[in-house]
Amino acid sequence: MFDEALVSKRCRWPHWRAKLRTAQEAAALIQDGMTVGMSGFTRAGEAKEVPRALAERALQEPFSITLMTGASLGNDLDRLLTEANVLARRMPFQVDPTLRRAINDGRVMFIDQHLSETVELLRNRQLADMDVAVIEACAITEDGHIVPTTSVGNSASYAQLAKKVVIELNLDAPEGLEGLHDIYIPQMRPTRPPIPVVAPDTRIGTPYIPIDSSKIAAIVITHGKDSPSTVQPPDADTKSIADYLIGFFADEVKIGRLTPALLPLQAGIGNMANAVMSGLAEGPFEHLTMYSEVLQDSTFDLLDSGKLDFASGCSITLSEPCGERVWNNLERYRDRLVLRPQELSNHPGIVRRLGVISINTALEMDIYGNVNSTHVGGTQMMNGIGGSGDFARNAQLSIFVTKSLAKGGDISSIVPFVSHVDHTEHDVDIFVTEHGLADLRGLAPRERAVQVIERCVDPRYRPALRRYFADACKRGGHTPHCLEQALSWHIAMEQDGNMRRFQCAETAGAVE
Amino acid sequence: MFDEALVSKRCRWPHWRAKLRTAQEAAALIQDGMTVGMSGFTRAGEAKEVPRALAERALQEPFSITLMTGASLGNDLDRLLTEANVLARRMPFQVDPTLRRAINDGRVMFIDQHLSETVELLRNRQLADMDVAVIEACAITEDGHIVPTTSVGNSASYAQLAKKVVIELNLDAPEGLEGLHDIYIPQMRPTRPPIPVVAPDTRIGTPYIPIDSSKIAAIVITHGKDSPSTVQPPDADTKSIADYLIGFFADEVKIGRLTPALLPLQAGIGNMANAVMSGLAEGPFEHLTMYSEVLQDSTFDLLDSGKLDFASGCSITLSEPCGERVWNNLERYRDRLVLRPQELSNHPGIVRRLGVISINTALEMDIYGNVNSTHVGGTQMMNGIGGSGDFARNAQLSIFVTKSLAKGGDISSIVPFVSHVDHTEHDVDIFVTEHGLADLRGLAPRERAVQVIERCVDPRYRPALRRYFADACKRGGHTPHCLEQALSWHIAMEQDGNMRRFQCAETAGAVE
Repeated sequence: MFDEALVSKRCRWPHWRAKLRTAQEAAALIQDGMTVGMSGFTRAGEAKEVPRALAERALQEPFSITLMTGASLGNDLDRLLTEANVLARRMPFQVDPTLRRAINDGRVMFIDQHLSETVELLRNRQLADMDVAVIEACAITEDGHIVPTTSVGNSASYAQLAKKVVIELNLDAPEGLEGLHDIYIPQMRPTRPPIPVVAPDTRIGTPYIPIDSSKIAAIVITHGKDSPSTVQPPDADTKSIADYLIGFFADEVKIGRLTPALLPLQAGIGNMANAVMSGLAEGPFEHLTMYSEVLQDSTFDLLDSGKLDFASGCSITLSEPCGERVWNNLERYRDRLVLRPQELSNHPGIVRRLGVISINTALEMDIYGNVNSTHVGGTQMMNGIGGSGDFARNAQLSIFVTKSLAKGGDISSIVPFVSHVDHTEHDVDIFVTEHGLADLRGLAPRERAVQVIERCVDPRYRPALRRYFADACKRGGHTPHCLEQALSWHIAMEQDGNMRRFQCAETAGAVE
Repeated sequence: MFDEALVSKRCRWPHWRAKLRTAQEAAALIQDGMTVGMSGFTRAGEAKEVPRALAERALQEPFSITLMTGASLGNDLDRLLTEANVLARRMPFQVDPTLRRAINDGRVMFIDQHLSETVELLRNRQLADMDVAVIEACAITEDGHIVPTTSVGNSASYAQLAKKVVIELNLDAPEGLEGLHDIYIPQMRPTRPPIPVVAPDTRIGTPYIPIDSSKIAAIVITHGKDSPSTVQPPDADTKSIADYLIGFFADEVKIGRLTPALLPLQAGIGNMANAVMSGLAEGPFEHLTMYSEVLQDSTFDLLDSGKLDFASGCSITLSEPCGERVWNNLERYRDRLVLRPQELSNHPGIVRRLGVISINTALEMDIYGNVNSTHVGGTQMMNGIGGSGDFARNAQLSIFVTKSLAKGGDISSIVPFVSHVDHTEHDVDIFVTEHGLADLRGLAPRERAVQVIERCVDPRYRPALRRYFADACKRGGHTPHCLEQALSWHIAMEQDGNMRRFQCAETAGAVE
């Protein structure tokens, strides 16, 4: 069934044989109504076989659980679990279309949380106690401690707080991952000393998750890979956004507000952030560092080019070709990488201490700089707020990027009034679209609106937003609005399926 | 003109005589277009004579400045400065009706900021450099360092960052204030060590603001008191809110989630928070501590009753009678009080580290738990976000309180969709009105709505909100809304001056 010699090499805990179980046997530990924590962050390092067995069992014998993870799961697990009706409650993040539909139909209760907060709530018993944790490992130490794989996420706290621990020992996970992790769990409050991370490369913990080995209820031997990321190469718009941002950074260096090393960088997941990070390879920058959440292809490109000195994150999510390059050459990156618990990678106090530059993607933004990161049309959950709030609130520079249009011009990403607020104007310093960059620092709302409209909005929608803002200013207020028109752009979407009624007839043709 | 012996006692810096100026002379240092920082936080410890002289001069000779303070100024200074058109820009907080009008008319550009962030922005040169700082002092040390009065606010960073410093030496300020302050300025990023505050009573700095004495451009001898706070005794509603909250805390202690010492408490300014804090004197609590922003009457009541062991804040704002008691008996409180820079009293990392329980007042809240703290009808600025965001985001328990009704029932404080968001649902754990307490922890939006509507809404408005929520749920979504009705309660306010069209006819009479 498996190579004993290979397993003993990975599993140095002497009692492992007594705990060997099939995925089905391990899944049987999980019963109706339980709270279960699983490894996995941005489709990296998730437990793979036990959740699959769980979904299979539920098709025969219905039951449901609260599932907590780091962030999103790969290998279609959220789909399988949703289809089998296993998920009564799910937190703190997801990206799966099937699960998303169930959330928006009200069939799965989704608790969308700042990613640094989930384990803090669990630790303080503000969430239900965790029954079982299922964690993917690349090794088990002599003392039964867990060496995670490609993500740390919430795995360390889940393993420590759960009553029982199931370990999926993935023999396909690179052995070289051992040593990459730095596991540190903040003490209980109110007697918590400062968390001593003072730079992206500070190591303060252990290279494994220390647990009470008597809690190990099952060890499941697995194979299989993370789902590759589907990052797209930059297109004309993301390239333009990256160019504006790189130009801005270069200017800040010139003025003396930043050094060529900038400040520790955080970039959200996705094509947009990846394009921006790739753009940094071209600029007048050196000795860059990252203090981020997910490390993507661009991180390794920058490490390879010598522009990036060090990257701290809580997971690594790579495309197929980049994965080949990295996983087969981990030694090359070993001393320039660290993976931490997401509570630390996203910690408000550390982000504030380091003065991180955060770059996140907005779904929509309003003329005053309030950002919607999550809800399409104000109601339909997309993925979740993720770590964007952890970073944007505490960053030295909080940057949001988006294409000015969606659906081929049917939708303007910039609207009079966002239909849902995830980040308030207080937490948005710089806003960039393919049309330009609005520097909103130190500006009052009426000044912010001019910058956003004139620099970032697509010319087709600019006249309508200018008109809205002018009409609103006539009515007065610190943040002027025409309330009866405030959500009209979203209502048009509901009625017409697009916002074209707000396009300017003359410029529409010219730009298209 | 002044008592030389008295002044030399307070002013131990040997060169003070050469720097003595009248308020008019000192005000002359401030020129058109300058950025000026002044002491003052919640109408405590503001420089009094120089701003007055500034306003007088501007009536003759028009000019305008950017004025930065800690928070609100007392002694009608914001009114005088507004009436004299001195204020082109103002940040980060205010409470003055005349200034508020000017802000809402768009005549003064107001930058509403998280109170912990202003000096961070200034230090990083993301705001214009500061030309002059005007700081009230109760003493000047041998080396020309400044001992502040009843608030620290942003005074320390302003004094250190400004090109010139004007000191208002207030001979009426109690001498006993010296020793109360703990001044610590975080280092520049990215090489900032952890700020070593690990408990409300940790002292980490100096009892004075260290400055380069060559920057002292003027010393003005002043007299005069802070404006007394106008805190009201609890009424039936605030008493009921306090009772619900005290009951909740007692339950948390019983369940074992909190100890009888609770966790360091933060309470916003005003009658509501004061009522809640006063209520703590009655509950099964002991060895309480505060890690808060403003210390009000209730703080000293709790210190006197022996319930409160220690209080950390950045300003002290008292009523006339409480002021008499405290300022004449400072020795009694000295070892149980500390005043810090607002950057530290409100520091996200420290609030997170200590696990503060934050209690702040909402202006309005929506059924999903999004809070508006600032904008009446979505457009008219009231005061500013203040420190509420610093605390609510990072607290172990983030509590918002409000009366369920305003204007004698004309307005429901709970609406379908807030007209402005200062705190997202992610940052609101507990919501309390006089009707009850909604515990929103770990709940999805649809579950939150039921709690908020059934427990907190006034019965007159409950049927309409139930109906809205039911209709919205039929349309679906993670956060269901009927967009075309979402702001209808605010539009009714604009049209009718009230929300009574949403009252239930049957219950309206019964409850009124």
